[in-house]
Amino acid sequence: VLEQQPFITLLTDYGLVDEFVGILHGVIASICPQARVIDLTHGVPRRDIVAGGAILAQNIRYMPVGIHVAVVDPKVGGTRRAVALKVADGRVLVGPDNGLMWGAAQVCGGIEAAVELSSSPWRLQPTSSTFHGRDIFVPVASHLATGQPFEQAGEPLDPAQLVVLERPPSRREGETVVAPVLRFDHFGNVQLAALLDELTVPFGTRIRINLPSGDTATAQLVNTFDDVVDGAALLFEDATQRLALALNQGSAERRYNLKAGDEVRITPVDA
Amino acid sequence: VLEQQPFITLLTDYGLVDEFVGILHGVIASICPQARVIDLTHGVPRRDIVAGGAILAQNIRYMPVGIHVAVVDPKVGGTRRAVALKVADGRVLVGPDNGLMWGAAQVCGGIEAAVELSSSPWRLQPTSSTFHGRDIFVPVASHLATGQPFEQAGEPLDPAQLVVLERPPSRREGETVVAPVLRFDHFGNVQLAALLDELTVPFGTRIRINLPSGDTATAQLVNTFDDVVDGAALLFEDATQRLALALNQGSAERRYNLKAGDEVRITPVDA
Amino acid sequence: VLEQQPFITLLTDYGLVDEFVGILHGVIASICPQARVIDLTHGVPRRDIVAGGAILAQNIRYMPVGIHVAVVDPKVGGTRRAVALKVADGRVLVGPDNGLMWGAAQVCGGIEAAVELSSSPWRLQPTSSTFHGRDIFVPVASHLATGQPFEQAGEPLDPAQLVVLERPPSRREGETVVAPVLRFDHFGNVQLAALLDELTVPFGTRIRINLPSGDTATAQLVNTFDDVVDGAALLFEDATQRLALALNQGSAERRYNLKAGDEVRITPVDA
Repeated sequence: VLEQQPFITLLTDYGLVDEFVGILHGVIASICPQARVIDLTHGVPRRDIVAGGAILAQNIRYMPVGIHVAVVDPKVGGTRRAVALKVADGRVLVGPDNGLMWGAAQVCGGIEAAVELSSSPWRLQPTSSTFHGRDIFVPVASHLATGQPFEQAGEPLDPAQLVVLERPPSRREGETVVAPVLRFDHFGNVQLAALLDELTVPFGTRIRINLPSGDTATAQLVNTFDDVVDGAALLFEDATQRLALALNQGSAERRYNLKAGDEVRITPVDA
Repeated sequence: VLEQQPFITLLTDYGLVDEFVGILHGVIASICPQARVIDLTHGVPRRDIVAGGAILAQNIRYMPVGIHVAVVDPKVGGTRRAVALKVADGRVLVGPDNGLMWGAAQVCGGIEAAVELSSSPWRLQPTSSTFHGRDIFVPVASHLATGQPFEQAGEPLDPAQLVVLERPPSRREGETVVAPVLRFDHFGNVQLAALLDELTVPFGTRIRINLPSGDTATAQLVNTFDDVVDGAALLFEDATQRLALALNQGSAERRYNLKAGDEVRITPVDA
Repeated sequence: VLEQQPFITLLTDYGLVDEFVGILHGVIASICPQARVIDLTHGVPRRDIVAGGAILAQNIRYMPVGIHVAVVDPKVGGTRRAVALKVADGRVLVGPDNGLMWGAAQVCGGIEAAVELSSSPWRLQPTSSTFHGRDIFVPVASHLATGQPFEQAGEPLDPAQLVVLERPPSRREGETVVAPVLRFDHFGNVQLAALLDELTVPFGTRIRINLPSGDTATAQLVNTFDDVVDGAALLFEDATQRLALALNQGSAERRYNLKAGDEVRITPVDA
């Protein structure tokens, strides 16, 4: 699937203030000048493997098939493995073996082969202890983009040994959907690990939300933000088809003091 | 005008923290891999149609001719139209019909044809209610970039029905120029809807500025920031040829407590 | 060295909120559509020539050979020169003559030729007083990228007349290394103008740090952040091979109240 202009995508928690992302682009251009690079995001909350993994898994289908680098790597320089994963739909994922890429690999049909990269012949040397994006992950991705064989990237690794990161599922309890908080966007919208279909009520229904703090809130299930007044709470189907809790023109994350992994209980008020 | 490497430019209020912009790039690459993408800005103040429209109108002449997507869209998912506009200089503008693209269309010689995109055959399905950048605007722009005919993007629309957004003009009252505040950059420089030529006095002239609050400030009309001491107020011709009010090393926006649409009265002190 | 797809890299203090960077990309695409652009960073602290120069000098080797534009330019519109520099390894540097590019030029083998650009035939006209990135530096870089001769960019200039910016070196005083603070990243890690080798002690050694305030701190010399507990101070070799002072999960810049140019005194505790 690697034609003349292979695609490399990048997802990191590096932010865009420092020069780290620019360096990744320079390393790619130096090794594989014909590669096209897409910055999926560099705004993953720092060291948040769960959020980074969710962003990658939810959106990889919008990326062209290519080499997909993901770096949220709090244990960089330690004993965690560095890996490249060949998945069933023809993509290759490159990053730390800490679960970050697990969800995306499942979305892409599962892992067909894995290699460990710590001693990859393609790594930059000297290899720093703190910037494996520059020294290992991106050089490996760039060499793969030139068409070099996957097996030559490093040592073979049994996929059964990879770190697994399963996201907590939602569940039904009578009329109530119990949904873990998955992540936040920078508007403070709260994405839940539940789908619209799990709430078997029509748009317009008022919903009681029991928060982990013991407090209760009321929100309306609606199609768009514009369906409620400013400051009002709403539940809507977000762009990834998941239920999300929001305040029109405000931050539900702050108002309800939620963090990832918290469970909220969602009950139609008429139930 | 669409050669082998067509250009698509993007202007949004999405910010660069979330993954939204990365997804737009992925969708473009999936539909029209040969397209080149320029991010004009994703830092338009959220929901600020006037500021976004001013940025687009002032700077489209620096963009190569291509397909220009603009998304500042507080009514996404509601009844506002989604449109593509063919303008006289060969460009195509794609975005919501809320006035955002009106000024740019005039700069480009006026609108020659329009289509409504809500049911475009090129939209992604299912089409979300909240992310028309991903599901409508960018897919339409990408198909146009591949060379498909403008008329096939959607339903024909009489350009006379489009939402008009005229920017308030400046005016003379004797020696005074009355100038509406147009927008702010992130340094707090205040761009006014007036040109340097409207002030018929030379550089170095002291200027009295009457603020909407009733307060009065004094600034010097100068060529560059370096012509005044740190902390001093200045009026200068900004890079778009408009008059702008600034503080050297400070924020005029905060000091003078201004907002878009406010009128300031500018009078040479000797007048 | 300029093939069909020449590379242009950009380093500025423009930030990514306003449209300035997008305009640079548009100007490049209009003049040299085949150019590939790499944004090394636009997050240089505003007007910080020393920090911008350090980032460029430390990282230009990761950029493909090309035209390298650097704009940190507090005296824009004044009497400072605008220059293009041909350096020994085939690169060309373009920016203000304020020392910003001096360190990178040395890293690249030294300056072979220079031209002054204020009246370059390639500049955009009218030329603004505040946005030479758009009107001078990027147009010149783009014309060079099309293959036009370096000498035609402007007036010849004797390299001996260029502004020199030497970075302050570290020095030994007995067992103590005296190291100037070079710059900060956005995590608050403090980069010092000293190399790991100057400290002739093994990883694990406790280090006393005498601060300019008169206070004393203790840090451990380690290989990675993960080697100390959260909140603890560490000295490590950063990704540019320089010594850096950090707090695990915190900001050393804030804790120790340091600024660029400050000297810290580093002494192994057993010495």
